[in-house]
Amino acid sequence: MSNIPKIVILGAGYGGILTAQRLQKELNYNEADVTLVNKHDYHYFTTHLHMPAAGTDHMENARVSISKLIDEFKIDFVKATVSQIRTQEKKVLLEDGSALSYDYLVISVGGETETFGIPGMKEYAMSIRSINSVRMIRQHIEYQFASYKQDESRLDRLTFVVGGAGFTGIEFVSELADRMPELCKQYDVDPSLVKIYNVEAAPTALPGFDAELVEYAMNVLQNKGVTFKIGTPIKEATPEGVIVGEGELIKSATVVWAAGIRGNRIVEEAGIETMRGRVKIDDYLRVPGQDNIYVIGDNSLMFNPEGRPYPPTAQIAMQQGVTCANNIVAAIRNQQPVKFVFSNKGTVASLGKGEAIGIVGTKKFKGFTAAQLKKMIDIRYLFIIGGIPLVLKKGKFL
Amino acid sequence: MSNIPKIVILGAGYGGILTAQRLQKELNYNEADVTLVNKHDYHYFTTHLHMPAAGTDHMENARVSISKLIDEFKIDFVKATVSQIRTQEKKVLLEDGSALSYDYLVISVGGETETFGIPGMKEYAMSIRSINSVRMIRQHIEYQFASYKQDESRLDRLTFVVGGAGFTGIEFVSELADRMPELCKQYDVDPSLVKIYNVEAAPTALPGFDAELVEYAMNVLQNKGVTFKIGTPIKEATPEGVIVGEGELIKSATVVWAAGIRGNRIVEEAGIETMRGRVKIDDYLRVPGQDNIYVIGDNSLMFNPEGRPYPPTAQIAMQQGVTCANNIVAAIRNQQPVKFVFSNKGTVASLGKGEAIGIVGTKKFKGFTAAQLKKMIDIRYLFIIGGIPLVLKKGKFL
Repeated sequence: MSNIPKIVILGAGYGGILTAQRLQKELNYNEADVTLVNKHDYHYFTTHLHMPAAGTDHMENARVSISKLIDEFKIDFVKATVSQIRTQEKKVLLEDGSALSYDYLVISVGGETETFGIPGMKEYAMSIRSINSVRMIRQHIEYQFASYKQDESRLDRLTFVVGGAGFTGIEFVSELADRMPELCKQYDVDPSLVKIYNVEAAPTALPGFDAELVEYAMNVLQNKGVTFKIGTPIKEATPEGVIVGEGELIKSATVVWAAGIRGNRIVEEAGIETMRGRVKIDDYLRVPGQDNIYVIGDNSLMFNPEGRPYPPTAQIAMQQGVTCANNIVAAIRNQQPVKFVFSNKGTVASLGKGEAIGIVGTKKFKGFTAAQLKKMIDIRYLFIIGGIPLVLKKGKFL
Repeated sequence: MSNIPKIVILGAGYGGILTAQRLQKELNYNEADVTLVNKHDYHYFTTHLHMPAAGTDHMENARVSISKLIDEFKIDFVKATVSQIRTQEKKVLLEDGSALSYDYLVISVGGETETFGIPGMKEYAMSIRSINSVRMIRQHIEYQFASYKQDESRLDRLTFVVGGAGFTGIEFVSELADRMPELCKQYDVDPSLVKIYNVEAAPTALPGFDAELVEYAMNVLQNKGVTFKIGTPIKEATPEGVIVGEGELIKSATVVWAAGIRGNRIVEEAGIETMRGRVKIDDYLRVPGQDNIYVIGDNSLMFNPEGRPYPPTAQIAMQQGVTCANNIVAAIRNQQPVKFVFSNKGTVASLGKGEAIGIVGTKKFKGFTAAQLKKMIDIRYLFIIGGIPLVLKKGKFL
């Protein structure tokens, strides 16, 4: 009936929310129908999940209702899981059996855990990837303390293994180390019995990050009781723990895999060409040859001027969201799209309470200053998506 | 060397603490050496455990350091687990290999869970009997919600079975029902999927209690969503749940057994004659034929004037503690002991927030009044053992 173009956004993560909000702002009345589809009725802050996962912050500080972020008079929200994208028919099928047609599609569904084929990893390890998985990890950790007090021979219940010393791994292990004294006190457990291992296959923690800051981070964490096993691949995860390096078994009832992310399978299943699940999009964030499909966030693959792929971060997803929305509006108005140019605002990794490391431009930060910087970044994000009210509501943890 | 008599108290529950405190008060300087032995360095309020078990109150409100309850200049405290009582040698062996000699022994170690030989009950059910077991139950419950969100086909994770509708069972099931809406909200679970069963083999809930009040209690709990299966024995506990009545399987990942208590095995292993683990003590609380050994609390068996055994309660244990201490002092001073006479102060069962039932003398209470009465009883106990400071510190939950 109507000739109004239909825009469907799949996923309300960093990229999807920014796209929706920018479209909401830019589009005129009746210029397009926008539908946002998301598995949950909330948006969550992936970069904050390491805190509730370890139990150092409340879960509710890591999510916000989507209805608080978008104007439902302007954008339709559908709570559903996408089962299939049919590019030929310009349709998205949902798990509940319904289907959405689109003229423009934004794929911002987020990535999946990549276990690199390590045997047992999918079965026996948990990963930090959603509110549901994070609630599980948090409960699992506390459950180990409660269980240990029922059978004090089970020291594996007090041993925690984090696979991967990238950003997620380091940030999680930091919170875990901060949480342990509290749990020991609560459960009457001798803190000297608790072991935290951070295992990384690469020859350094935080690969690609400034060496001086990496050393600083490792010192901070070692002082908090973390044992690093760097240059040590996990060979296998088993019901007893993990086998690392040359066959050493670390007995542990809690293995958290924080080492890899790949593109979502839904993208390759749509017949779109991918590299390890990610789409090598054009400069305008579009699937090559399919100008009406945009891919942003974890499923997109872009290269920096030196020819190296940008790592999937919240920062790049947010910037892509804004450009994506602008380019869709331009397309509707028969205007020229703009090329996406990543503007690096800097990178900060939290090391737990009062400690962090960061780089902004060429300037290095560490300790308290870096921790303050991290808080500012988090506050800035809350402000961008929800204004002052959201800062006041969710910013308490900062 | 010294001729000062040695008094050893085993267990710092209601009976043991009251004995220790009364001895501390009555004994003159150097009149006796008193040693209190307890597995933990804290005393806990067994009658309050149903709240932290369900998660409706903090664990710390259910316990207090023993050092806050006794004067360690007057009484020695030994944190140890008793492994054996050798009545011939007047010695108590501890698990750490040490031994304590006594002239007077008070056995106030508390009871053990009685599962009446129901297959699988020991292996697959939890029971409310200590701070450690209660922390486990609490974590287990929350773990089920977190796990359910990982696999929503597992409805057994949202089904909770409480075995026994006696005092502990009813009080726990009440708190559990109060806790569920909160957990559902926290984990985004549809409350209509949660099931709570209270299964009781006897033909009524709260056997022996006033029928009108029992009916009131059942109505209150049914309105909170509890399903009763009364006159229905649990035939077996399995990894899947429980088999009840004529073979019906209730699938449940959480079975809490709150139906039975028996005497501690350490007593019968000491060669003391017992009936279902309990010692039929004389009127002075002593083991027949062994005037220097007193048994109080869950391990003691006494009969009311109608010839029925008193149920093991905190109330009777406390009163026994006082009489026990008085009689030991009398024995040391070559005075006459006094007979123990139980003075029934009434009985109140909590039904969760703002609800309870109770009988004091011949007067029945229910609803808000009964709930206030329950609080008064709890406050009175805190006052007896720790004075105003303990009331202020732990009475917050009241």
